[in-house]
Amino acid sequence: MARQVFYVSDGTAITAEVFGHAVLSQFPMEFNAITIPFVETVDKAFDVVEQINESFITTGERPLVFHSIVSPEIRDVIYGSEGLDHDFLNTFVAPLEQQLGVSAKPVMHRTHGIANETYDGRIEAINYALDNDDGQTLKNLDKADLILLGVSRCGKTPSSLYLSMQFGIKVANYPLVEEDMDNLRLPTQLLAHKDKLFGLTINPVRLHEIRQNRMSNSRYASVRQCRAEVMEVEQLYKKQRIKYVDTTNKSVEEIATKILAETGLERHMF
Amino acid sequence: MARQVFYVSDGTAITAEVFGHAVLSQFPMEFNAITIPFVETVDKAFDVVEQINESFITTGERPLVFHSIVSPEIRDVIYGSEGLDHDFLNTFVAPLEQQLGVSAKPVMHRTHGIANETYDGRIEAINYALDNDDGQTLKNLDKADLILLGVSRCGKTPSSLYLSMQFGIKVANYPLVEEDMDNLRLPTQLLAHKDKLFGLTINPVRLHEIRQNRMSNSRYASVRQCRAEVMEVEQLYKKQRIKYVDTTNKSVEEIATKILAETGLERHMF
Repeated sequence: MARQVFYVSDGTAITAEVFGHAVLSQFPMEFNAITIPFVETVDKAFDVVEQINESFITTGERPLVFHSIVSPEIRDVIYGSEGLDHDFLNTFVAPLEQQLGVSAKPVMHRTHGIANETYDGRIEAINYALDNDDGQTLKNLDKADLILLGVSRCGKTPSSLYLSMQFGIKVANYPLVEEDMDNLRLPTQLLAHKDKLFGLTINPVRLHEIRQNRMSNSRYASVRQCRAEVMEVEQLYKKQRIKYVDTTNKSVEEIATKILAETGLERHMF
Repeated sequence: MARQVFYVSDGTAITAEVFGHAVLSQFPMEFNAITIPFVETVDKAFDVVEQINESFITTGERPLVFHSIVSPEIRDVIYGSEGLDHDFLNTFVAPLEQQLGVSAKPVMHRTHGIANETYDGRIEAINYALDNDDGQTLKNLDKADLILLGVSRCGKTPSSLYLSMQFGIKVANYPLVEEDMDNLRLPTQLLAHKDKLFGLTINPVRLHEIRQNRMSNSRYASVRQCRAEVMEVEQLYKKQRIKYVDTTNKSVEEIATKILAETGLERHMF
């Protein structure tokens, strides 16, 4: 049976989840995770303890409890459960206090809260990505931090949205169509921003599979068509000396961070 | 001067960043962060060590080095720097091995890689959010996990995209317009999925500020109009017994996780 895991936080619990997932993915076994966010009062903390203890009684195994709780009072209550505690936040806070010679000043909701001067820039970046998705306009390219190129369904849109959401980067994306390919040329509006261009490519068979889901047995989805488009687009990147990354077998996170590593664009944090 | 911080990873470094940001946000001081992802070889690790040592020489202060590195060889190289190491991953792996009675089997790129059966579902959710944004169609509501309601510019689109990207949830969103308000009624297509409806509301003055950025000094952006719309929309939620959340002063993460907590929708991990 899968081992029971609790992620507990007085905030969104996103940090506890992301980090717990990273730690647990090192173990070759199954986990059953329950996330309990917004445990902002001692009363709620006692409810959580009850839930943890219940799981212990039912399964006979101590649940793993990963917590990132800022308030010491609430943390102490959670520590009183029958679970095995892993205190993500405070494990590192005490040594850091020594190293920095500064006491921590815990404030709730600072991590994923809105008290962040770059936050509006993030929402602006998300809106920018939506307004400038799929080549629907080439009018705002002067405001772009990055312009992604690629054939239809190679991953431009999810990558653009992730870059805006996670890192606050303004990304336009442009689908290369047959007219562009014919002469291995790019529209002049794009060439005017050549330093912002970045290409995506993909394995043609994978592209075929993805397109089949949208329009099965169309010319658009045929392996032959996919192969031709990918070949042409890679030629175009080489001819125009545009850096590019292969999205096949890469997650959105991997594509996005590869692009940032290649371009040197700054990763903002929210 | 801001203390120098390095986030080092053999993967995307997103886990190291998110977690480091959470830990450091507890300290009332400035940090200057450099993220170095994809440190996949011992050679690259030595380059990183050089960069860390350089920073120590230049600033006279030992930089903080937060790493989440799976490979022991690469990790050992990083430990050899002049920085102050905080090993996010392995600090928790050793005690977990004892508690679980299972040895960790470190595999690179497992955290944010694509080897995840739910990954295609995530891309599908992102595409769903885009295709069903802003009420552009009401045809696919049977496939939605959640339908967000709200007046224009109250946060529906960023919330929908975040829920799809982070948690793999299929979210449609619908902007309540004056026709809907007139009789405090909802379109019948929405009423057919009443259990999926969730409302957003916002402080009228904040709404006015946001709308001013889009269309300044319009009727649409006026405080009076914003106040009327918000009042009506809240009445509608109450009348129709639709749960809702106030987005004012909340980050996208907070809005998304509040909605999940209220609806009980499952948080998938990627």
